[in-house]
Amino acid sequence: MTHPIITAIEERRTTVLFDPSRDISDEQITELVHLATKAPTSFNLQNWRFIAVRTSDAKARLRAVAWDQAKITESSVTFIICGQMADEHTLPERLAPAVEAGIMPAQMVDGWEAGAGSLYNEQAWRQRDEAVRTATFGAATLIFAAHAMGLGSGPMIGFDPEAVAREFTLASDEIPVMLLSIGYGTPENWPQKPRRPLSQVLSFV
Amino acid sequence: MTHPIITAIEERRTTVLFDPSRDISDEQITELVHLATKAPTSFNLQNWRFIAVRTSDAKARLRAVAWDQAKITESSVTFIICGQMADEHTLPERLAPAVEAGIMPAQMVDGWEAGAGSLYNEQAWRQRDEAVRTATFGAATLIFAAHAMGLGSGPMIGFDPEAVAREFTLASDEIPVMLLSIGYGTPENWPQKPRRPLSQVLSFV
Repeated sequence: MTHPIITAIEERRTTVLFDPSRDISDEQITELVHLATKAPTSFNLQNWRFIAVRTSDAKARLRAVAWDQAKITESSVTFIICGQMADEHTLPERLAPAVEAGIMPAQMVDGWEAGAGSLYNEQAWRQRDEAVRTATFGAATLIFAAHAMGLGSGPMIGFDPEAVAREFTLASDEIPVMLLSIGYGTPENWPQKPRRPLSQVLSFV
Repeated sequence: MTHPIITAIEERRTTVLFDPSRDISDEQITELVHLATKAPTSFNLQNWRFIAVRTSDAKARLRAVAWDQAKITESSVTFIICGQMADEHTLPERLAPAVEAGIMPAQMVDGWEAGAGSLYNEQAWRQRDEAVRTATFGAATLIFAAHAMGLGSGPMIGFDPEAVAREFTLASDEIPVMLLSIGYGTPENWPQKPRRPLSQVLSFV
């Protein structure tokens, strides 16, 4: 029997058309983000933030700075998934619960902070790459969680990042990496599109 | 009953310690990449490449430029997951199979290329962000596929990107976004570490 995860990977498709008459609850939104934050992040940095754009007013404001895409107002919620510029000084606080739980030896924290510092400190493009990686890992996990809950998802990069940051008061270290609409899709959505042949994308060494 | 995808998200943990005596086959590696490429990419760009580092020689060369991390030689395979700088001119070729399959109307391709061009053309940081997003979506999907196949996975950013590019002959538009070791984990691996409280990472507007 095919594992349900494999089936989900094979069947998932991007949802563009949502049924505006079917809504999801705040509890479901919270559960989706709870699951999204189970994704891995480098050094367990968890340098992300999820803004659930939920009200009619906020949806209209987001749509106005995102290529007027209808799925923002027709889906139940659109997440602004932010990555935060990686900062090794956040690590002691982020790792403290793992130390308290007896998972991570306390004396390892300094080494992790030093390792992260060697990657990020005063290297803005590495800090930014990490923000994009972290937010995307969160988005991917949220997409699978939504699929498991019978919901469709539509990721978007067609938006004005400066305007999104201004309208939704992002902090100066936050990057809007992706928008992600979630809700009930209609049957008219396209199936998954064909992929490049593996010979073009996989090599063994 | 909890959906197996939800269970996987809750249970997944990063594997650092691999059993070097247990190997996986080239067929399994191919299947993992087949599934990884089912991940979504912006405009279906599929701007990624997966290098399966598999032989003892190649593993040693990679370990030497990746902080001497043991999991590179002890796991069955370590993927160098590359993102390619986003280039809208690749779209007609990437979308052709969707047109041929009758999924996408042929007259839409020009519009997608124009939309992608407005985002990427002569905007290097956006091209790079897209390379990181695409590779990370592929990595996340590969991690879930591995989990479904009973395999552990360990993503890594601790490596010298220039040296990796040189040793493994990456093209000038390719970025090594992540290394990802796959194999059978040992029982000593840590469980998933606790996450930040949702109140710190989720807001509703």
